[in-house]
Amino acid sequence: MTKIAFVGLGKIGQTITYSSVIDGIFEEVMLYDIIPELPEKFEHELRHAFATKSIKTEIISSNNIDDIAGADIVVITAGKPRKPGMSRRDLFKDNAKIMIDLASKLPSKNPGAIYVMVTNPVDMMASVFAKYSKEMTISTGDQVETMRMRSFIAKKLHVPVNEVNGYVGGEHGEDAVVLWSTVSVKGKPIDQFNIDKEEVSNYVKQIAGEIIRVMGGTTWGPGTIIGDVIRAIALNENKLMSIATPRVFEGEIIHISVPVIVGRTIGPSIESLLDEKDKWHLTTATKDFYDVYKEMLSSLGEVTLSK
Amino acid sequence: MTKIAFVGLGKIGQTITYSSVIDGIFEEVMLYDIIPELPEKFEHELRHAFATKSIKTEIISSNNIDDIAGADIVVITAGKPRKPGMSRRDLFKDNAKIMIDLASKLPSKNPGAIYVMVTNPVDMMASVFAKYSKEMTISTGDQVETMRMRSFIAKKLHVPVNEVNGYVGGEHGEDAVVLWSTVSVKGKPIDQFNIDKEEVSNYVKQIAGEIIRVMGGTTWGPGTIIGDVIRAIALNENKLMSIATPRVFEGEIIHISVPVIVGRTIGPSIESLLDEKDKWHLTTATKDFYDVYKEMLSSLGEVTLSK
Amino acid sequence: MTKIAFVGLGKIGQTITYSSVIDGIFEEVMLYDIIPELPEKFEHELRHAFATKSIKTEIISSNNIDDIAGADIVVITAGKPRKPGMSRRDLFKDNAKIMIDLASKLPSKNPGAIYVMVTNPVDMMASVFAKYSKEMTISTGDQVETMRMRSFIAKKLHVPVNEVNGYVGGEHGEDAVVLWSTVSVKGKPIDQFNIDKEEVSNYVKQIAGEIIRVMGGTTWGPGTIIGDVIRAIALNENKLMSIATPRVFEGEIIHISVPVIVGRTIGPSIESLLDEKDKWHLTTATKDFYDVYKEMLSSLGEVTLSK
Amino acid sequence: MTKIAFVGLGKIGQTITYSSVIDGIFEEVMLYDIIPELPEKFEHELRHAFATKSIKTEIISSNNIDDIAGADIVVITAGKPRKPGMSRRDLFKDNAKIMIDLASKLPSKNPGAIYVMVTNPVDMMASVFAKYSKEMTISTGDQVETMRMRSFIAKKLHVPVNEVNGYVGGEHGEDAVVLWSTVSVKGKPIDQFNIDKEEVSNYVKQIAGEIIRVMGGTTWGPGTIIGDVIRAIALNENKLMSIATPRVFEGEIIHISVPVIVGRTIGPSIESLLDEKDKWHLTTATKDFYDVYKEMLSSLGEVTLSK
Repeated sequence: MTKIAFVGLGKIGQTITYSSVIDGIFEEVMLYDIIPELPEKFEHELRHAFATKSIKTEIISSNNIDDIAGADIVVITAGKPRKPGMSRRDLFKDNAKIMIDLASKLPSKNPGAIYVMVTNPVDMMASVFAKYSKEMTISTGDQVETMRMRSFIAKKLHVPVNEVNGYVGGEHGEDAVVLWSTVSVKGKPIDQFNIDKEEVSNYVKQIAGEIIRVMGGTTWGPGTIIGDVIRAIALNENKLMSIATPRVFEGEIIHISVPVIVGRTIGPSIESLLDEKDKWHLTTATKDFYDVYKEMLSSLGEVTLSK
Repeated sequence: MTKIAFVGLGKIGQTITYSSVIDGIFEEVMLYDIIPELPEKFEHELRHAFATKSIKTEIISSNNIDDIAGADIVVITAGKPRKPGMSRRDLFKDNAKIMIDLASKLPSKNPGAIYVMVTNPVDMMASVFAKYSKEMTISTGDQVETMRMRSFIAKKLHVPVNEVNGYVGGEHGEDAVVLWSTVSVKGKPIDQFNIDKEEVSNYVKQIAGEIIRVMGGTTWGPGTIIGDVIRAIALNENKLMSIATPRVFEGEIIHISVPVIVGRTIGPSIESLLDEKDKWHLTTATKDFYDVYKEMLSSLGEVTLSK
Repeated sequence: MTKIAFVGLGKIGQTITYSSVIDGIFEEVMLYDIIPELPEKFEHELRHAFATKSIKTEIISSNNIDDIAGADIVVITAGKPRKPGMSRRDLFKDNAKIMIDLASKLPSKNPGAIYVMVTNPVDMMASVFAKYSKEMTISTGDQVETMRMRSFIAKKLHVPVNEVNGYVGGEHGEDAVVLWSTVSVKGKPIDQFNIDKEEVSNYVKQIAGEIIRVMGGTTWGPGTIIGDVIRAIALNENKLMSIATPRVFEGEIIHISVPVIVGRTIGPSIESLLDEKDKWHLTTATKDFYDVYKEMLSSLGEVTLSK
Repeated sequence: MTKIAFVGLGKIGQTITYSSVIDGIFEEVMLYDIIPELPEKFEHELRHAFATKSIKTEIISSNNIDDIAGADIVVITAGKPRKPGMSRRDLFKDNAKIMIDLASKLPSKNPGAIYVMVTNPVDMMASVFAKYSKEMTISTGDQVETMRMRSFIAKKLHVPVNEVNGYVGGEHGEDAVVLWSTVSVKGKPIDQFNIDKEEVSNYVKQIAGEIIRVMGGTTWGPGTIIGDVIRAIALNENKLMSIATPRVFEGEIIHISVPVIVGRTIGPSIESLLDEKDKWHLTTATKDFYDVYKEMLSSLGEVTLSK
């Protein structure tokens, strides 16, 4: 896991790149974007940052997707960003087309790569990319919500954030579900603490929109958290994280976040070890996802791959 | 050195904040900006990032400058940013007024703090702030150019960047001077290598403008490099860095970058140990800086401090 | 998880302490050993190390076990070390008495602490300590063997060690079992590679003895690996590690290593998700452990706690 | 600076190796000792540690000094250790012979390497090695005393250690001198604080002996501090550290510690920027060193190099 490629260098793409590579854990980083000169100028910025950190990682930048080759990990943020007022699903059609295009180009040049999807709606984009590429694709899913949940509870209860444990699952975004059976504070079940669960859920669902309204986008939170998902893969950390891996539901590959071991190999998930209520939520999320996703997929019309 | 404040949370302010605090070396970070809700929303972003990194640093955010209190280090990025086509000096007048205002407010609440100036034109803003605040103020000066110089030579000569040593001095920006007597590659003087010194100088002077033209601003390079200046202070690293510390020239405090030891205490500079040519360049830069700065200062008219 | 105590400061105790605290993640570290002056002199050594690393962690050292108070994590290495030619079980009787003594003294002063057992025979000592203290006790178990297995396969197949995944389980020591269903290289099942499984197993079982024969003890390997178990708890990393947590078998608390999520909370284990063969090995190990342990326990005679 | 060799793998050699390589900053580490099997078994220990840290550094171990080849940095700890009651100078004769032997063997296989001397009496061994090898040799000198001084003042004044700055210079050991003009606390000169300078000096001179008496040797302090000297070179940190670089005094290369910039290049020293009193102390130390060193050298008799 020594070469990493970033496909898409917008605000979030840049932040994930920075957060992933600034510890010098990769031998080579490849930068791609469709915007002329952007990869090359971002390369300069990274070189200046690498100079102060004494990082030896090689950098390649290009506007040509065919230059992305030999990567062990490919991180995809390419696509239209979520603007104030937009839902993640509004983005489906435009971004699905981009995914289908990438699915026709990236696999042959990057054999054996793991694809880390970040483009929204992230779970569906992961499913679309996996469907058309046949490659191992994960969605960074609800690990972002997971950390938002922990940070909110920590602040509310005035405890350090590493005293809060637990996960959020389901589809990334408004339908994410706190998996309450996994949540604990100072090693004790959350039910022993005075906290309004609905307030927690609302925070998890709404804070991204609030940040986007004021700051124009979410960057530092997701950038760092997704950087840690990438690090878990690259350094084989085998960390339990709430991400979405491919599963087949009624014949279709779909992506729903559950706590999963993330390292050089992805899995197993601990879904079967959760309590009944949390399992039921995840089953419902799976079905809901499938229904919407099928409808979305059909809206794409017939897809021809330009191999 | 446990509490740090960031005054100004624009693109570069956010990047420096992130790069300074993401290793968890501070006990408390204070965030200030004039834009409503921005400090608070940025606080949320940082909390989410801290959750995944298990960082316990406390965060305070405010639109009220009086809430910035008890800081050991105050990093100032507030002010108008440099837009495409603008010179750093164009910004003088508007930003000097902001500095004078901050100089009247920050010192009484932050006794003994070190002020790290980043607002452009950075050396002059440091001088203005020091003049009106009477506080220890450094300009992050040419440490950014220093790293740009090293990264360019490393790429040109195909060597890892940590094989290139040396410094850039003088005023930050178009008048910065490579201090060639300090430059070496693989432990050998630069003169033993086939490199076009003018090409190096031009890169150092022009790359920022190029990045701004394409990306709208420079962030990752300066953000990381200035983050390392802050870290050198906070962790008492005693690193040799090219920053500007206050010196008195013809009765006026001015800031010109030379290689200086940066730790819990700032200094000594090694200017007197440089070769004659490099010393001459720095003397010239000092005089040039003074001439322009005096003119700029007088353009401000009479200044009244609103203590 | 801000205060950590180390009970026992022999060679391995010192190495684990160093490896756990040298990143500055704790607010306070407490050092205890029965040998006069040793905790105090080791404190000096750590202070000198902390000075160069700018670490602010407070250090307390003592020859009085009652000074170990308020710890979140207590790491126990106290006891007789394994000498060349000795089996871990030879140590049982002497070290069990020490555990029973510690079990009568530590819990009342350290409410809510997690106990990390390192003293050999480590799983049995964890069981003894848990039995008499009624406190949450883990054995660092087979995480050491796990890393030895990965390092051996990596060297054998000439791949970087982070390309090898998988776990060793069962009782720490000569009876440890490679859980082959979990082992992979470059993301592919181990069966696709040409490796002699018995050679791997033998290495895992014998290398400690070989190192002890030449170096007088194993330190750097276990010290670093156990340091990472401690870090996983302290930083709530939720990493999958092969450690032993308390389970009840025929009415007795026993400790057998299986892959378990290690963070601020310990668990769940993924034992139920393993393949049948690996599960069978673990069941057998459990039974074998119980048989020997019961016999060992009875050899202790009647135990009276000096509360 | 990607390959590092460790010549000597006793207690301190192992600790410096560990502290230098455990962050994974090198591509290759070479281990040498004269004791059969020791390098190889230590290699196993490091491999196990690298497995948990996901470090890809290659390791080579050997009992044959000719296998140490192509190193950028060679760290020498080989020699007889200082036993309780012995002075560092007692070791001169035996260890000088080892240095002369190494000086005849290492340079041809490691062109351009920097030699980092740790064997005691460290400054004299550096001088001997430099004399016979004609290679760039530094003594880790008084950086260890520097950190001991800071840690003592920090504890005495109840401030975090990163609030204390300053250096110790002169010959490593009983003749080291606190360079009081460089010492500050919370950014203020030490004279503003109530501290007994003689007590500080005594601590710096005597603590090593105290630790050796109880622990059998000093390891964690020097190991970490010397590891940071190595890191400063390898990562080109340009940190001000009190080490000894070669200077010519009355025709002889000698090593006396003064604050020096340590990075990919070593120097300049800031000796000329110190106050008169501190400069006088260093001049005296130089003369004293020379006198003893000349006498010691002559005790060696005629030296023939076995090239």
